[in-house]
Amino acid sequence: MSPSDKALVPFVSVDHMMQLIHRVGVTDMLRGLADYIEADFKRWELFDKTPRIASHSAEGVIELMPTSDGAVYGFKYVNGHPKNTRDGLQTVTAFGLLADVGTGYPVLLSEMTMLTAMRTAATSGLVARYLAPGNARVMAMIGNGAQSEFQSLAMQAIVGVTSVRLWDIDPAATAKAARNLQGTGLNVVICASAEEAIEGAQIITTCTADKACATILSDNMIGPGVHINAIGGDCPGKTELAPGILHRAGIFVEYPAQTRVEGEIQQLEADHPVTELWQVMTGQAAGRVYDAQITLFDSVGFAIEDFSALRYVRDQLEGSGLYHELDLLADPDDPRDLFGMLQRAKG
Amino acid sequence: MSPSDKALVPFVSVDHMMQLIHRVGVTDMLRGLADYIEADFKRWELFDKTPRIASHSAEGVIELMPTSDGAVYGFKYVNGHPKNTRDGLQTVTAFGLLADVGTGYPVLLSEMTMLTAMRTAATSGLVARYLAPGNARVMAMIGNGAQSEFQSLAMQAIVGVTSVRLWDIDPAATAKAARNLQGTGLNVVICASAEEAIEGAQIITTCTADKACATILSDNMIGPGVHINAIGGDCPGKTELAPGILHRAGIFVEYPAQTRVEGEIQQLEADHPVTELWQVMTGQAAGRVYDAQITLFDSVGFAIEDFSALRYVRDQLEGSGLYHELDLLADPDDPRDLFGMLQRAKG
Repeated sequence: MSPSDKALVPFVSVDHMMQLIHRVGVTDMLRGLADYIEADFKRWELFDKTPRIASHSAEGVIELMPTSDGAVYGFKYVNGHPKNTRDGLQTVTAFGLLADVGTGYPVLLSEMTMLTAMRTAATSGLVARYLAPGNARVMAMIGNGAQSEFQSLAMQAIVGVTSVRLWDIDPAATAKAARNLQGTGLNVVICASAEEAIEGAQIITTCTADKACATILSDNMIGPGVHINAIGGDCPGKTELAPGILHRAGIFVEYPAQTRVEGEIQQLEADHPVTELWQVMTGQAAGRVYDAQITLFDSVGFAIEDFSALRYVRDQLEGSGLYHELDLLADPDDPRDLFGMLQRAKG
Repeated sequence: MSPSDKALVPFVSVDHMMQLIHRVGVTDMLRGLADYIEADFKRWELFDKTPRIASHSAEGVIELMPTSDGAVYGFKYVNGHPKNTRDGLQTVTAFGLLADVGTGYPVLLSEMTMLTAMRTAATSGLVARYLAPGNARVMAMIGNGAQSEFQSLAMQAIVGVTSVRLWDIDPAATAKAARNLQGTGLNVVICASAEEAIEGAQIITTCTADKACATILSDNMIGPGVHINAIGGDCPGKTELAPGILHRAGIFVEYPAQTRVEGEIQQLEADHPVTELWQVMTGQAAGRVYDAQITLFDSVGFAIEDFSALRYVRDQLEGSGLYHELDLLADPDDPRDLFGMLQRAKG
């Protein structure tokens, strides 16, 4: 007995996602994702929004990130387990789903470990295009783990960065990132300290994995006019920046209700002023106001970015062959006859 | 390039789930599910609990139902779209996942349309075993849609019901249910009205799909001593019982914070007394207190029941061959080298 069409949900495996990325091209896909994210940020008010639903444990966190634009519903499952790396596992793995709001039927299931790295980088690039100094050509990349190459390529593709200055507490991570970035056209500089990495950088990206209130950037390291792209401070008890930096910076966030709990600004008072990025993108709020301003993107990742990314993937799938049909939904001919369907399967 | 073991997640399709149900036997599986649900209700305080996260639209609702016992995390995706039936679609479709809390890695993905019908029925049977009159042999089954046969068989398997009295506003639904229940050993009586269906019944199950504050049971229909198993009042604006019944009944619920929003008791004051079922099962609270008491299970379905059901399925899988391995997780040899994994896939 073969399932009906509606019972089959297109599934994009890790292998298919990697093929899709290469088919489009990493750079073009980062740009495409940024366009989809920007389009959805510009219709922000339309979305059903909620802080992600987190289940915390001693080892990490498992989160569900749902949203809906009224026609399509999406959610992502994602974990964050900093200690996983020690055991040879990914810190972050993810998968996600789109469904039709009108029927509740899923229409796409996809791996999102790769896709999350791509969308996080695309968001960073998009935000930097709005906030970084116009002449930004050099990025410091502090923390050279799984996200670092994606971040570097997004800043190249979307902002025009030509040089990345790498530093990590583990030189092997830096060597890996430098090796992976060969042949991308980026000028790659291996640095011996965070201080050295930020020399001459207009954009400073921090993306470290330790679950701690760490000080990856101290107050005296940050001069005027830079854009800080703070990725790694993204759950309660996990921050990367000295509070002094936050007090001097214009702070830009995705969704305040979530960022105040998870982001760098968990270190500040609950009413510390922040600017919502969607308002910058629609022109309702100012981005960078003066050259010497320190701008900070307190990135934690929001459900709408995943929604945009899944939407992008779905739009690439038709005719690509880069998915399987998954027998995920029981869909009997007579919808009230679920039991009859079960009985007929006894064969 | 083939993915690593940890990247592969066992997936139980609809077809495999139906094979599994027949392999175990519908009746034995309903009993097995009830045992797992009871075991988890008895360790209720251990679980991370939250009302499900609902995304409402004009047509229906899409919900995520997460929970965790500290070692295993689970969630279900489920929709409820009453109008789907009209278009030949299921009112409720679902799938679910278990993950390892220690690593955040998923360990099971499963269809849950079939499994939800099974676990909902198993929960009803389990609760009736605690609350229904000891001599309960006759059940009225009001609403003969997709859940009705499962409900009937669970009451037979778990409580010892021998006769079901069917009624539905649509005679075709009743005829379908009666046909499907042939050969199950149940005495099936087709009734011409709800009033006729409840004649002589010790258990009254309501399971209708209309999204409305309906009155499937009016106050004067309910005599002393019956157990009401109210399934269909399960989201805001969707109830089945006249408020008068609620005021006369001992009300038992899964998780008050959720049931007060979604269940029959949304019609009552927020502080109307209810008894939590886990406390009945652990002996901390009384179930049925006197013969003439009307007991009401205000069933809405809670995440822990899905967790139990997924746990049951996982325990049946080993050696069964009733699953596929899904390439769901990107898992590079060096966890920090996600980009290298992507590059090597370019092949």
